[in-house]
Amino acid sequence: MNIVTTIAEVKQRTEEARNQGKTIGFVPTMGFLHEGHASLMKRARQECDFVVVSIFVNPLQFGPNEDFERYPRDEQRDRALAQDMGVDLLFCPTVEEMYPRASSVTVNVHKRVDVLCGKSRVGHFDGVATVLVKLFNIVGAHRVYFGSKDAQQAAVVQGLIEDFNIPVTLALCETVREQDGLAKSSRNVYLSQQERDQASLLYATLTQAATRLQAGENVQTIAAMVEAEIRNQTSGTLDYFEILSYPSLEQNINHDERVILAIAVQFSKARLIDNLIVSRQDQKEEGIHHV
Amino acid sequence: MNIVTTIAEVKQRTEEARNQGKTIGFVPTMGFLHEGHASLMKRARQECDFVVVSIFVNPLQFGPNEDFERYPRDEQRDRALAQDMGVDLLFCPTVEEMYPRASSVTVNVHKRVDVLCGKSRVGHFDGVATVLVKLFNIVGAHRVYFGSKDAQQAAVVQGLIEDFNIPVTLALCETVREQDGLAKSSRNVYLSQQERDQASLLYATLTQAATRLQAGENVQTIAAMVEAEIRNQTSGTLDYFEILSYPSLEQNINHDERVILAIAVQFSKARLIDNLIVSRQDQKEEGIHHV
Repeated sequence: MNIVTTIAEVKQRTEEARNQGKTIGFVPTMGFLHEGHASLMKRARQECDFVVVSIFVNPLQFGPNEDFERYPRDEQRDRALAQDMGVDLLFCPTVEEMYPRASSVTVNVHKRVDVLCGKSRVGHFDGVATVLVKLFNIVGAHRVYFGSKDAQQAAVVQGLIEDFNIPVTLALCETVREQDGLAKSSRNVYLSQQERDQASLLYATLTQAATRLQAGENVQTIAAMVEAEIRNQTSGTLDYFEILSYPSLEQNINHDERVILAIAVQFSKARLIDNLIVSRQDQKEEGIHHV
Repeated sequence: MNIVTTIAEVKQRTEEARNQGKTIGFVPTMGFLHEGHASLMKRARQECDFVVVSIFVNPLQFGPNEDFERYPRDEQRDRALAQDMGVDLLFCPTVEEMYPRASSVTVNVHKRVDVLCGKSRVGHFDGVATVLVKLFNIVGAHRVYFGSKDAQQAAVVQGLIEDFNIPVTLALCETVREQDGLAKSSRNVYLSQQERDQASLLYATLTQAATRLQAGENVQTIAAMVEAEIRNQTSGTLDYFEILSYPSLEQNINHDERVILAIAVQFSKARLIDNLIVSRQDQKEEGIHHV
């Protein structure tokens, strides 16, 4: 595995790979890698000839009161994990390398952002889209891998790719969970032991909500159940629970073939998110499943 | 020359060319081609193996009170000219092909836009940058050609390419002029005979202004001279005359190696722009010259 820190090196090595007719798979991350990331790398490794992983904690996607400075970092462990997963090229740029000056241009995201995390994280997806446009141009990947845990991010990126005609295919991968159902996240380390125990309730509640939705229960009743569960069973505060069409993220859940049930809970030092994406038309037959 | 109207066809043909190891030159236009465009195609033809020209009147870069609907179009003549210039692929998409739905993302341009044309054309360069990001992704060109008549556009695009890491090189080409100095423009057809006669004064005045700048005269005095010239010698209205650093477009003209003297004059049915870009350090030695 090659580890590089400059854009020029990435361009050179990916150009070599392309010239050899290799397909390039790309996993953009903010580091502090866990099994969720590992599953993305594994799939990229299976599907592509040359696998690139980037580790970059992107300041543009953090709000002024968010956790950019204290976002967890462990470069050494990240390198070992990427190496284990058979990654070919690990790109770890500095902020100065990615943003050598105040940028003259940014991407503005107009759709799929006024719901879920976008409501409280104003400008967050502009920052995500901006750094991804840069990374797509630098890496020139054929396929890019995202986890469905960040389902809104994946929906926004799908729109970005389509509307900017970016020559890359998005592969959406299933959320990887702890044994008790808690979605893997770099931010789980911030949980106290008590909060960690309570946190499994996010997945349990989502599963229950999806079952009720399948049974034809209305969205308001389900939302009230979720709110009561989080209030009564955890020390956290419900930031949102929403049922929307996916990937359009419209209130009209008949807008797409799929529906997302998504939740965010603020604990003392960590805000956790989770979701289930279920097929609308086959709900009854297939039951709940991730896509 | 192949003429195509769909994004899929452009991608297919440019991919073929890339796979054959050809360098791709790209000239994005809004059509109604004149000798200015021809000079861009000629240079692309000289420097690249495969030349792509796009003709697309981009609604996103026109303001609500601008001339999108009545922007001049002559597809047949454009095709003949592109054919004559040895263009390989002419891309003439419809608005629906480029924007099949309201876009979820646009590019926001923050720098180099609050001066010159950007002052009165709010959002114009956002529209330019957005369509260019799309076209760059569709065409995958190695080199893109712009005329220095639209100097602010070229400066904005240079920033876009650098800050988004777009893998394309911008080639800036000299403004092509009529015999009396009037810069070639698709909008010149809107001039009355009297206005057409007066319009040569833009270039003459710019030349005079550059000479005075070289001689050490201060910017305010030069601006007053230009204003008086346009007021007294034409029926048009001076929209702006500015002397700025280039390509940063800063008021401090010592910011870059080059300086731009730029003018815009509103005639009854056409707003004309022109500029001179002169080298700052070599002014005395080389005199006025385009870059």
